[in-house]
Amino acid sequence: MEFDYIRWLRDRTPADPRVPVGPGDDCAVLAPPGRPLLVTTDMLMDGTDFVVAEVGPRRAGRKAMAANLSDLAAMAGRPTAAVVSVALPRAGGRDFAEQLYLGLRDAADPFGVPIVGGDTNSWAGPLVVSVTALGEATGRGPVRRTGARPGDWLFVTGPLGGSILGRHLDFTPRVREALALHAAVDLHAMCDVSDGLAADLNHILEESGCGAVLAAAAVPVSAAAAELGRTSGKTPLQHALGDGEDFELVFAVSPADGEALSREAPVPVYRVGECVDAGLWLETDGTREPLAPTGWVHDV
Amino acid sequence: MEFDYIRWLRDRTPADPRVPVGPGDDCAVLAPPGRPLLVTTDMLMDGTDFVVAEVGPRRAGRKAMAANLSDLAAMAGRPTAAVVSVALPRAGGRDFAEQLYLGLRDAADPFGVPIVGGDTNSWAGPLVVSVTALGEATGRGPVRRTGARPGDWLFVTGPLGGSILGRHLDFTPRVREALALHAAVDLHAMCDVSDGLAADLNHILEESGCGAVLAAAAVPVSAAAAELGRTSGKTPLQHALGDGEDFELVFAVSPADGEALSREAPVPVYRVGECVDAGLWLETDGTREPLAPTGWVHDV
Repeated sequence: MEFDYIRWLRDRTPADPRVPVGPGDDCAVLAPPGRPLLVTTDMLMDGTDFVVAEVGPRRAGRKAMAANLSDLAAMAGRPTAAVVSVALPRAGGRDFAEQLYLGLRDAADPFGVPIVGGDTNSWAGPLVVSVTALGEATGRGPVRRTGARPGDWLFVTGPLGGSILGRHLDFTPRVREALALHAAVDLHAMCDVSDGLAADLNHILEESGCGAVLAAAAVPVSAAAAELGRTSGKTPLQHALGDGEDFELVFAVSPADGEALSREAPVPVYRVGECVDAGLWLETDGTREPLAPTGWVHDV
Repeated sequence: MEFDYIRWLRDRTPADPRVPVGPGDDCAVLAPPGRPLLVTTDMLMDGTDFVVAEVGPRRAGRKAMAANLSDLAAMAGRPTAAVVSVALPRAGGRDFAEQLYLGLRDAADPFGVPIVGGDTNSWAGPLVVSVTALGEATGRGPVRRTGARPGDWLFVTGPLGGSILGRHLDFTPRVREALALHAAVDLHAMCDVSDGLAADLNHILEESGCGAVLAAAAVPVSAAAAELGRTSGKTPLQHALGDGEDFELVFAVSPADGEALSREAPVPVYRVGECVDAGLWLETDGTREPLAPTGWVHDV
């Protein structure tokens, strides 16, 4: 592990007593977690996940960290630390590296996540930033995608669609929401909405071996989805079903827990449907039509 | 965490009972280590760390994994798992991805290190591969760079120099050697030779607050260093002192432990010098000259 800008910047930040790492060591050293360790990694590239020339390195760094924390949230994990490796565009110089690091911290600091190490490179190519986030399960264990069953109620944690207008950069990973829900009810299955509601719900259904019906009138549609729908040729609902990178959570609970959440939830939740034996369906005015994981409705 | 080729390939490999990870989860889930957790990350890029068009994706993948395991070896850690994120050149197609993965496994399998997750992307740019390796300290704790003191003997685990001729791709990370040495003696300080013997020893000296003298006649010079020296304009010794990416270990022990290792070591070791109060020196025929961390001798 090589350090330069990132280490230098990290060293200017207050020491974190949970991180007994010495400067210049080959590895970060962390206290052993008492619970199962969660590990996730995501690589983000200029031109694919953001356009740095438009959004700047700070928002790019923020997104890279937040996307990884969202993966921990998806399993109701507590984030504990992160490492970051980057290929910096050589032309950006030191200011670029500093802004990127500040963006990483923008996403990590609210959750008390220290950046404990990294590898900083520069090259003639575009920005590439790879974050690996570590976390630990709570006493109730990690929430998998495998536990949804027919009859379960399905919820999401917020309005969906149109994240390309800005939310894909500025979202808050649902770490606290996941922990609060995990403490309140028995989460049968959960994931974050990174590929789109229909696609990510479909991941849960495939892993759980069941189906689901979404209620068209119940899917919360974001203002951005409505705005996009004015010019995109899609309806706001199609954006809410198909767009990716909202980074809300979608989860399944028993009907009893669903009723409990409907009465009083620790965080905002929206009931969007329920699990059935098989298939993925959208119900509109009492009629069910097959819903593709892309979010498109196929007329039957 | 998105999976595709890497997950697909991983799923074709035998299940590892130590990795209770379900396919399709957002994070890998690992049993909590009983000891301090070691984390290291390194990003390797085509054109910087290798030229894929010359060496092929398999050797590139091998190097990416091995370099990270070398960082764990440098602290005498036991590697336990790795995650891999990649940006694949789109033109390479599936064969490129498979070869890369096989290379990652070439380096990981000899140490029983499972690849527990990853993020696979493709783009129009060159190959970028970022590995994060996890390990745990032994009961004797991680070996830092901070514990060298004047009088300590300095050793390396193998001949040095000229790695550009091939060894930088095909080295075996000194994981077993580090563990054997750590069990046999009290390692005061250690790191792997990635930047060059003089540079990496200098890292130890800076962290430990002491100096060192290397004995010119004692530094083991690789055959590759001798070969390079015939045309490079540098001496083989200069290559051994200055070249990077040999990925041998350099370490400091007490004189008593040094004598013990000189009598009988669990793995090959070469005594190259000793620690002094300050400075970095090269001693040739009884004369000490200042040695730059680049490996160059400055005439006094």
